[in-house]
Amino acid sequence: MKGYAGKILRVNLTEGKATKEDLPEELVKKFLGGLALASYYLYKEVPKGADPLGEENKLIFAPGVLVGTGLPTLSKSSLVFKSPLTGGFGRSVVGAKMGVALKKAGYDMLIIEGKADKPKILRIKDDEVEILDAEDLWGKDALETQKILKEKFGKNVTTAAIGPAGENLSLISSVDFEERQAARAGVGAVMGSKKLKAIVVEGNRKIEYHDEEKLKELIKKWINVIKDHPATKADMDYGSGEFLDWMNRERGTFPSRNWQWGYFQSAYDTKGYTEIDPYKWVPKLRVGRNPCPNCTKPCSQVVELKKYKPGVKVDGPEYETLYSLGGELEIDDAEAVAYLNYLCDIYGLDTISAGVTIGWAMEAYERGLLTKEDTDGLDLRFGNIEAAAEALRKMAYREGNIGKLLADGVKRASEKLGKDSWKFAIHIKGLELPAYDVRGIKGMALALAVSYRGACHLTAGVYGTELVGKWWKFENIDRLSHENKGFEIKFHEDLMQLYDTLGACKFSRHMFFLEGFPEMVYAVTGLNVDKSYLITVGERMYNIARAFNVREGFSRKDDTLPWRIMHEPIPKGPSAGARVSPKELEHMLDEYYQARGWSNEGIPTKAKLISLDLDDIAEEVGVGI
Amino acid sequence: MKGYAGKILRVNLTEGKATKEDLPEELVKKFLGGLALASYYLYKEVPKGADPLGEENKLIFAPGVLVGTGLPTLSKSSLVFKSPLTGGFGRSVVGAKMGVALKKAGYDMLIIEGKADKPKILRIKDDEVEILDAEDLWGKDALETQKILKEKFGKNVTTAAIGPAGENLSLISSVDFEERQAARAGVGAVMGSKKLKAIVVEGNRKIEYHDEEKLKELIKKWINVIKDHPATKADMDYGSGEFLDWMNRERGTFPSRNWQWGYFQSAYDTKGYTEIDPYKWVPKLRVGRNPCPNCTKPCSQVVELKKYKPGVKVDGPEYETLYSLGGELEIDDAEAVAYLNYLCDIYGLDTISAGVTIGWAMEAYERGLLTKEDTDGLDLRFGNIEAAAEALRKMAYREGNIGKLLADGVKRASEKLGKDSWKFAIHIKGLELPAYDVRGIKGMALALAVSYRGACHLTAGVYGTELVGKWWKFENIDRLSHENKGFEIKFHEDLMQLYDTLGACKFSRHMFFLEGFPEMVYAVTGLNVDKSYLITVGERMYNIARAFNVREGFSRKDDTLPWRIMHEPIPKGPSAGARVSPKELEHMLDEYYQARGWSNEGIPTKAKLISLDLDDIAEEVGVGI
Repeated sequence: MKGYAGKILRVNLTEGKATKEDLPEELVKKFLGGLALASYYLYKEVPKGADPLGEENKLIFAPGVLVGTGLPTLSKSSLVFKSPLTGGFGRSVVGAKMGVALKKAGYDMLIIEGKADKPKILRIKDDEVEILDAEDLWGKDALETQKILKEKFGKNVTTAAIGPAGENLSLISSVDFEERQAARAGVGAVMGSKKLKAIVVEGNRKIEYHDEEKLKELIKKWINVIKDHPATKADMDYGSGEFLDWMNRERGTFPSRNWQWGYFQSAYDTKGYTEIDPYKWVPKLRVGRNPCPNCTKPCSQVVELKKYKPGVKVDGPEYETLYSLGGELEIDDAEAVAYLNYLCDIYGLDTISAGVTIGWAMEAYERGLLTKEDTDGLDLRFGNIEAAAEALRKMAYREGNIGKLLADGVKRASEKLGKDSWKFAIHIKGLELPAYDVRGIKGMALALAVSYRGACHLTAGVYGTELVGKWWKFENIDRLSHENKGFEIKFHEDLMQLYDTLGACKFSRHMFFLEGFPEMVYAVTGLNVDKSYLITVGERMYNIARAFNVREGFSRKDDTLPWRIMHEPIPKGPSAGARVSPKELEHMLDEYYQARGWSNEGIPTKAKLISLDLDDIAEEVGVGI
Repeated sequence: MKGYAGKILRVNLTEGKATKEDLPEELVKKFLGGLALASYYLYKEVPKGADPLGEENKLIFAPGVLVGTGLPTLSKSSLVFKSPLTGGFGRSVVGAKMGVALKKAGYDMLIIEGKADKPKILRIKDDEVEILDAEDLWGKDALETQKILKEKFGKNVTTAAIGPAGENLSLISSVDFEERQAARAGVGAVMGSKKLKAIVVEGNRKIEYHDEEKLKELIKKWINVIKDHPATKADMDYGSGEFLDWMNRERGTFPSRNWQWGYFQSAYDTKGYTEIDPYKWVPKLRVGRNPCPNCTKPCSQVVELKKYKPGVKVDGPEYETLYSLGGELEIDDAEAVAYLNYLCDIYGLDTISAGVTIGWAMEAYERGLLTKEDTDGLDLRFGNIEAAAEALRKMAYREGNIGKLLADGVKRASEKLGKDSWKFAIHIKGLELPAYDVRGIKGMALALAVSYRGACHLTAGVYGTELVGKWWKFENIDRLSHENKGFEIKFHEDLMQLYDTLGACKFSRHMFFLEGFPEMVYAVTGLNVDKSYLITVGERMYNIARAFNVREGFSRKDDTLPWRIMHEPIPKGPSAGARVSPKELEHMLDEYYQARGWSNEGIPTKAKLISLDLDDIAEEVGVGI
């Protein structure tokens, strides 16, 4: 098969053994590769009820099908696993150089299974695969670990590592890939549970493409399309937070102060602007970029710290982090956010989940539900930067009362604290919410409610469509209406699963849409696919992830929203008064399940699964209607 | 391309010219052939606003992709055209030997366009195509015409002809194919408007199949599957009306007396059974069978008349006709129904539409809305067989007041009569309803409301699923609920479009389901298709037909039900009290449009059309959301 490395590498850490399997051609035909293929393997190989931190769970790393081809922004790799945070299907996507390296080493997918008894490193150099001891690295932070590995194995290697949070099985811990993170759903804890500290990959082969000439043409074409697109300059100049001010002041959907507000009120009301708006801080702080592989429009903004850790450089903060460690904590200080971001990176914590969890703790503290004893003396008021920094450290190490309370995210923390603190615990299925106040973006509320990995903004990636009211061929979207959302969300979800399967950056969805891909896939693989085939691959993946969750007991009852979103309207700003009532949510679910071909209980029907050629899954979890 | 004849025959009657075109390979890839391909041609070639009886309309005859292969029950050909009855997309399906003959003559599709100025016959014998004068045949009945043609052109020819109704442009007229009828949506009038009296086809070539050995195996396999299926014996022994008694007494959904009842009350209440139940009449009347090509489970029941036209044989009556010319008219006499059926066949009238139209007239007459002057003296009471027979004749010839009133179906008749008679005119979009009292089969009500050709039971073919409560992988269907119907109906529709595209008899859907087809298509054509591809072909076709209608101005407002169904509950029997309220219908439409990816107004979204690779149609009719 042209365009593919042709092998799957399976590493069993219990047995300390690596095996190479042929990439099954019939599965490539059905799933193409990347996320979709990895998801099918996860479904088939991780049994119902498996302990996410136990030996039965697997961590599958799958570069997108078009990664490494030179096509611009085709840069993403997916990690799939059973999520210890949600108990369901876990997916974490990262713009890692390791995706390219793995393919060049000869593998389209890496399956890590079992559990080592002592800390290990997995080292892959083309055909050579070694499982090395890593006791000396255990305890080191994620960035330092990778620095050491690069010194040891040379500049040609790509690396990934967990930090102390992953080692300590924090359910909101991340895996760092040379300062790009696979962060969500507890991926770091899965790697930590396997005692796998790091991965080192070097690949030196060339992959053959079906039509190299055509591919060159396409690379040139798309580089130009991207260059000429109006969004590109803003993304490059100010990063993913470019629209923060618009989100806040035009839409009033920038959640702040643990979602007490949908509008970063304190900052704007006192100054008329916020310091965390990239238009304010990027010109002062940016010193470089750290692009994903083959990105020609890098949104990365590498920042040098001055106040907190002078001289230290950090890649970020992105829009999500400006929310979770900024507005959410009422910290109106870009460098402080970058500093907290840096701490998350070295500890190996998901910035979104960590920030939202601390935001919850700050609210609980201000309400008197958490005492100074609970916080180990930290004055966890909103806006307290040093307290937030210390809380992050304690979370990573499970240190003290507050570290133990917060290490596993806001769902566990609120369950432990009790006292109605769940009412302001901002998560869905355990995963903390991203930077979109969905009380004023109702289609997005549906998307978060149903997403298989919990409150994820990228499973549907529909925020832009909802907030602007149009995108691609969608028009007349009313973000404040709860009607007519089923197909809209379904389509976006299917398309985004395709993006992850191909490895396309979602910030290119204004250029590639759906129709950009058939010619790319053809030039690379020779597979003559049309748009209906591609969107079906996305739908197939989405149904596998749902089926995985259904097998674990998930259903309609789990497709819900945080209490605050359903019961407390946004108090101020352009979306003041908006909430998603329980009745509205039920209506959206009804429509969505019909669009999906699922039962009223949110279970995929046998008819839908079989017509996606997922007969085995239909047999296991499908229902009549 | 293996499995295909490879040519399209285009006959222009205005110019008296036939041309042969290569079957475009890229369109075969997208549509496979048959109904789906024909529909795309119709969409592209018949412009918006074209007069259905004018020169711009086309009549496209397309045998199913698997017709003529020897696979059992793969027997159906589709005719598509702009319907003069509905003003929308017209489809009429028939188990015609001509489908096989056309392929053997070298053509996968026949496009008839333009309009002759004098009556013509189209004669095709392999490469030879002639347009012959037919003034001598004009005025003759449909069966006699074909008898003459067979005498003239030999026994090897297959024939089709219209009767006087088609000549006189009755909007409910049919085309007869050797006593199998393409009847619905005014197909006879389209042929009549082109002054095309008949078609004669002889084909002597052999089509090569991709894997002849495998095909032989499959033929054997499926013959056995069909033979062993429990439904086969009942279908063969008693025909399609086999379940009439169950429909009536178990379900109470056998519409009678112009839908005043959902239960054939008079017959059962006096005798405990009805004479039109095939278990009563088949043993007495059947003298033979007239199977569709390659049918190994023929449901055809050829009957010899004794009372009305002694010695005459008629193929039928089917279940639909037992309703429309039986219960609907309160005629509890199987031979009388067969006699009226015979009259429809020779005149070239659709038995369903003709019967429902007369039923309406009988109700209007009994209510005093029609006088004896209006009926030309006919005593049009329910149950009057001779009056019904005479009405049919007058309709075919547009004779007298009653003939002119009824010739174009119940919608036109009620519009002409006025006086609230529309309230008991049983049609949707102009097409008269089939034999399922959808007040007690709510999913089926939705299917009829949305069907692109008006009230058609075969567009979704969901009656069995609804009435039994399960079918294939569907379970727990509640026929009296209006909830959770969107995906159910969409799936059935897509599948049935696939059946017509392949040429599969819908009475085989209990054997083939969806999964039977990939191996058939592969053996015949070499196309390695999976289930998702096949169901997408069906969905693609369905969206083309909808788009055709949208271009003509159809929208949500047209997806409605007859007044009686929404406002008068079934008065008696097992479904007593059931109706489909306007609110229930609106709810079902909401869910259905979401399942379809259409707007709230019932217009396909651009996103849906493009993801079906129908970019040109998206551009023309698609909407934002």
